Amino acid sequence: MSDKPLSIPTATISRLVTYLRILTNLERSGINRTSSDHLAEEAQVSAFQVRKDLAYFGRFGTRGMGYTVLTLRRELQRILGLNRRWSVVIVGMGRLGQALANYRGYSESNLYDFDIKGLIDVDPDKVGSSIHGLTVQHVGDLEGLSRAASVDMGFITVPVEKAQEAADALVKAGVKGILNFAPTVLEVPDDVAVEQVDFLAGMKRLAFYILNPHLKDLKDDDA
Amino acid sequence: MSDKPLSIPTATISRLVTYLRILTNLERSGINRTSSDHLAEEAQVSAFQVRKDLAYFGRFGTRGMGYTVLTLRRELQRILGLNRRWSVVIVGMGRLGQALANYRGYSESNLYDFDIKGLIDVDPDKVGSSIHGLTVQHVGDLEGLSRAASVDMGFITVPVEKAQEAADALVKAGVKGILNFAPTVLEVPDDVAVEQVDFLAGMKRLAFYILNPHLKDLKDDDA
Repeated sequence: MSDKPLSIPTATISRLVTYLRILTNLERSGINRTSSDHLAEEAQVSAFQVRKDLAYFGRFGTRGMGYTVLTLRRELQRILGLNRRWSVVIVGMGRLGQALANYRGYSESNLYDFDIKGLIDVDPDKVGSSIHGLTVQHVGDLEGLSRAASVDMGFITVPVEKAQEAADALVKAGVKGILNFAPTVLEVPDDVAVEQVDFLAGMKRLAFYILNPHLKDLKDDDA
Repeated sequence: MSDKPLSIPTATISRLVTYLRILTNLERSGINRTSSDHLAEEAQVSAFQVRKDLAYFGRFGTRGMGYTVLTLRRELQRILGLNRRWSVVIVGMGRLGQALANYRGYSESNLYDFDIKGLIDVDPDKVGSSIHGLTVQHVGDLEGLSRAASVDMGFITVPVEKAQEAADALVKAGVKGILNFAPTVLEVPDDVAVEQVDFLAGMKRLAFYILNPHLKDLKDDDA
């Protein structure tokens, strides 16, 4: 199977992230081997789903023998691009941007390593101030910052009506991935990836599960 | 088909939320009828997936005739529990809690109506202060607040090491749904629903899509 399949469901990528976390926990517990049954149980999906998700990326493990935890963990980390450090800039230093700038937990050994390299705003009262050891810079400095720090990703935490402007500035600065906290669809070139953080979606699912508590533990996409 | 199926994939609930948004937009544009093909195109899934998702909840529309926008919108709203108002309390008035207390966008006509009814902290410097017209109350007042305001949901925005304590306080106060922003798994009774807001998951998917830009638009679970 090729390294670059033509089509992979987004849900598969989300589940690979879950499998990686499970494998990292197994490794920390000193467990050397695992199975699709065990990964399935921990991830609350079917073993068939686990095998199908992994099959997009090649053959792992041996039939009837399961997987070597260390090998599969390293493979998933490589596939997901989480075996390297990612440089991040936050655009919009309101309350949410400040909360994210002060967040502790962007790195975890064998799981991910994101590094906040820059903070951006347009407000003269904010530009020049210091948050968690970083000086807030003006959006006009974004291109220089992006080049100097090889910025990979930008968080957009500006008000919704400024979000497209922030996206345009990130694209112009050569940033290839955007995590958008503003509740709006961004227009970006084809080679720029956007992920939406939508906590309202979580609230809406919650409404359903409060009304249907007997359904709350079923997480299997193949059900 | 029964109103209460035994097993529904979480991904189906997420897609119903998407279909509801699409139907609301069609309704606002004055469009009266739609089809599974159109819903599928807008939601970036297959028409088969749309029909399968809806079939969990009954029969909608007429074979070959599609759906009445207004009827299907109302049905989805009822199924998701978004045809009523939900009362919310935020536990943890740090930067993230403040950002969420100041957020505008908890209500949208025919889509959802969430109402922030209370703000909770333990810090004496925060308790008694006012944020967006609400007075921050001590966690000891949570039970009384919950009863008085019929609180349905709690946001947990405390530091990770205080998250379980916050969950326990919400459960004790009779709150049946928790939106957890802390990166930890909460232990709650069976009749309490928890949704995790995990922006790190978004960052990890983003890492993959930056490395695989040709894959970034495939969102179909049935691919």
